[in-house]
Amino acid sequence: MADLHVAINREKGGIAGQVAAELRESIRHGRLAPGTRLPASRDLAADLQVSRGVVVEAYEQLVAEGFLVSRVGSGTQVAQVTAPRPHAPAGGVEQHAPYYGHRPTSPDLGLFPRERWLASVKHVLATMPGDALDYGDPGGVPELREELAGYLRRVRAADVRPENVVIVGGVAQGLSLILHVLARHRRQLLAVEDPTSHRQTPLLRRAGADLVPIPVDGQGMDVERLRAQHADAALLTPAHQYPTGVVLSPARRAALMEWAREGDRTILEDDYDAEFRFDRDPVGCLQGLAPDRVILSGSVSKALAPGLRLGWVVAPAHLAEAVRRARGELDLGSPVIEQYALAHFLRTGGYDKHLRRMRREYRRRRDALVGALAEHLPGVRVRGIEAGLHVYLDLPEGWDESRVAAAALDLGLAAEPIGIMRSAAGPPAVVVGFARLPARRAAEAVQGLKVRMSGQSID
Amino acid sequence: MADLHVAINREKGGIAGQVAAELRESIRHGRLAPGTRLPASRDLAADLQVSRGVVVEAYEQLVAEGFLVSRVGSGTQVAQVTAPRPHAPAGGVEQHAPYYGHRPTSPDLGLFPRERWLASVKHVLATMPGDALDYGDPGGVPELREELAGYLRRVRAADVRPENVVIVGGVAQGLSLILHVLARHRRQLLAVEDPTSHRQTPLLRRAGADLVPIPVDGQGMDVERLRAQHADAALLTPAHQYPTGVVLSPARRAALMEWAREGDRTILEDDYDAEFRFDRDPVGCLQGLAPDRVILSGSVSKALAPGLRLGWVVAPAHLAEAVRRARGELDLGSPVIEQYALAHFLRTGGYDKHLRRMRREYRRRRDALVGALAEHLPGVRVRGIEAGLHVYLDLPEGWDESRVAAAALDLGLAAEPIGIMRSAAGPPAVVVGFARLPARRAAEAVQGLKVRMSGQSID
Repeated sequence: MADLHVAINREKGGIAGQVAAELRESIRHGRLAPGTRLPASRDLAADLQVSRGVVVEAYEQLVAEGFLVSRVGSGTQVAQVTAPRPHAPAGGVEQHAPYYGHRPTSPDLGLFPRERWLASVKHVLATMPGDALDYGDPGGVPELREELAGYLRRVRAADVRPENVVIVGGVAQGLSLILHVLARHRRQLLAVEDPTSHRQTPLLRRAGADLVPIPVDGQGMDVERLRAQHADAALLTPAHQYPTGVVLSPARRAALMEWAREGDRTILEDDYDAEFRFDRDPVGCLQGLAPDRVILSGSVSKALAPGLRLGWVVAPAHLAEAVRRARGELDLGSPVIEQYALAHFLRTGGYDKHLRRMRREYRRRRDALVGALAEHLPGVRVRGIEAGLHVYLDLPEGWDESRVAAAALDLGLAAEPIGIMRSAAGPPAVVVGFARLPARRAAEAVQGLKVRMSGQSID
Repeated sequence: MADLHVAINREKGGIAGQVAAELRESIRHGRLAPGTRLPASRDLAADLQVSRGVVVEAYEQLVAEGFLVSRVGSGTQVAQVTAPRPHAPAGGVEQHAPYYGHRPTSPDLGLFPRERWLASVKHVLATMPGDALDYGDPGGVPELREELAGYLRRVRAADVRPENVVIVGGVAQGLSLILHVLARHRRQLLAVEDPTSHRQTPLLRRAGADLVPIPVDGQGMDVERLRAQHADAALLTPAHQYPTGVVLSPARRAALMEWAREGDRTILEDDYDAEFRFDRDPVGCLQGLAPDRVILSGSVSKALAPGLRLGWVVAPAHLAEAVRRARGELDLGSPVIEQYALAHFLRTGGYDKHLRRMRREYRRRRDALVGALAEHLPGVRVRGIEAGLHVYLDLPEGWDESRVAAAALDLGLAAEPIGIMRSAAGPPAVVVGFARLPARRAAEAVQGLKVRMSGQSID
């Protein structure tokens, strides 16, 4: 037992706990090998100048945990069951960082209304009953479902009552849950827009969908092409298509509804970017048109922050109930304090006020970017500017979209090439987010892009 | 079943939901008493002139909610847990209470440290960089993983580094994700304790596990019985078994590790109630003994509040990475503000301080309840009192555990009969939570129970 070093800090107290911790570490790191006999408690106590009871307590602790075994007549030994910890990768945390980094779709989080949000949290913590902090309804707190139903009726023309609303952790989880419910008995053939967000694809597949890409043209998803395919359901971003920026046209809306009705099919509406329509009032959601056919998903990710992970699903009552139940069998629901805070934020007008402010600001930034592009890169055609936080840029023939996206990123402009979002090759294009580009920096950014791409353009 | 009136509006649709709602209301209002057997789904379907699937769906719904219990070979019965809620505070909140309502496992939420929690949220909102509110690492914010790794090393003797930690929305989601990962290629045979929490069963099945119940005796799960079965993994609550309250013995720990090692099997450790050990230092978690074999799940649900929906998974690095990826394909992670708040709360000692306070208070409440039982109901044997927020009561022969649980609930004591938690019949017992029972009210509650049960006891 020569190398049984046990360091004790007598001032800290909890001596038995310290002895146990030292021995535990020695066993873990192999300094005390399996089978090693420990000194009798009396002897170790004398060595450490502590009472025997302290050593006995430490030994008992480690016996209870399984690091030591104690058998009558053979003293206390290091157990056999402990294996040295496998080698851990160095460096720890930064390896995770690139995972979900900057996106062209992120809002300007520097403008998150911290003070007002804190005021709502404070109000909630001062007034909520204690039981509201217990296991709650997996479908969300009633106050928020009520506020959201009112908001969506008012702002999105949704046809919704509180019992149609399920609170979820964002559109991603909303789609996961909806597809889990729809695909409970068999996998679903899900029509998706082409191009579409490549980030969603693994999630949709995992939740039970096989994807059927349907081309998007200047009016949105091509419903005639949709009719030519088999599909159980269709997922769309009607308010502002990602990535093309197209707003689904009235004719397409009608055709889509007819397709859904005649085949008893479901529309999944991702109410993407709906809050930011610049040239007119936002178009009401599809759900308001056919609440029996459409399941609406939305979130506060664009209006407030993705990090809040707060969203909603609006569905016919029986499906809302199924989604809620699925949530109860998955994670028991969203955290409650921020649900109450959002309800308060909506009720007191904080949400509307913030949206008005952001709409003005984003419009200014969009105008600056579009103006700078027209001036400095006239060969680039800009699309999808009626709404949302990104624009779609058709590049001159011969430009390499990946190089453009990389150069834009380099200049601090969130950008992605279209190639990764579509099923077939096509003319070069990139999607560029402008939410974080201050208006005063737009010209400089576009000029920088021009410099970096010079020599690439054919003309 | 003469008085089973189920009104259906065929025009409204959602027939299964209507049937479920009607039954739920009947149970809530006592028209269907606890223990009542429901008609076979086939018979009820014929009565109502609906398809059998509709009735099965309604029954499943109510089983999932906890209004009904279903056991192979004994049909579907009204559960005991759904007695009318004792005394709800006025205002909006009570309507969601019955769903995952009062449980014997809930902490006293009246003592949630609102001021200190608000201070942490305030600190976070004043100091976090804007980008922290963006789409983040689905595995959790680095600061919290770091703090938790330190905390779990220190308090639970876990062998953990930040890269082993994945932040999740509570133990339920942790188990969902782990099982999704383990069952990606084929469903897992998962050994579970018998008796076990009946609430977890649907979640485990849904996530890909077929359950193999293994009896729990006075030392915890019977590992010899486990060896006699086929299982890929085992799920245990070693720190304080639910419902029996048993702490897994050292010998069983060793045997369990051997079982895991020799068959390359995985242990899922639910670190249930680990914070509340009353008679001595808590026993370190199993994970600390065999970090390569054990996946630890824990949460703040007992220490702070279930409504925060904050928990963690600790796993070997490659599995932690897989769990994190699974989270990224499910809902993109937990809300970030409260993750930062918890990191701050841990770092500044708020968590430890709150736990110390609660441990003292719960110990007082436990002592009061155990004392009152010894005095007024000496025929009841009390088990599992070393730790946790509930006790296990062996009832005198001939007592009806369902009646005892209902009477206890009536007195405001969260209680559940054991029958719904075990696979085979056994002597009558109930589990009773004492976290919300003030010490000064214990005698009164137990005397009330005695009065209600008088005439039931044989002696």
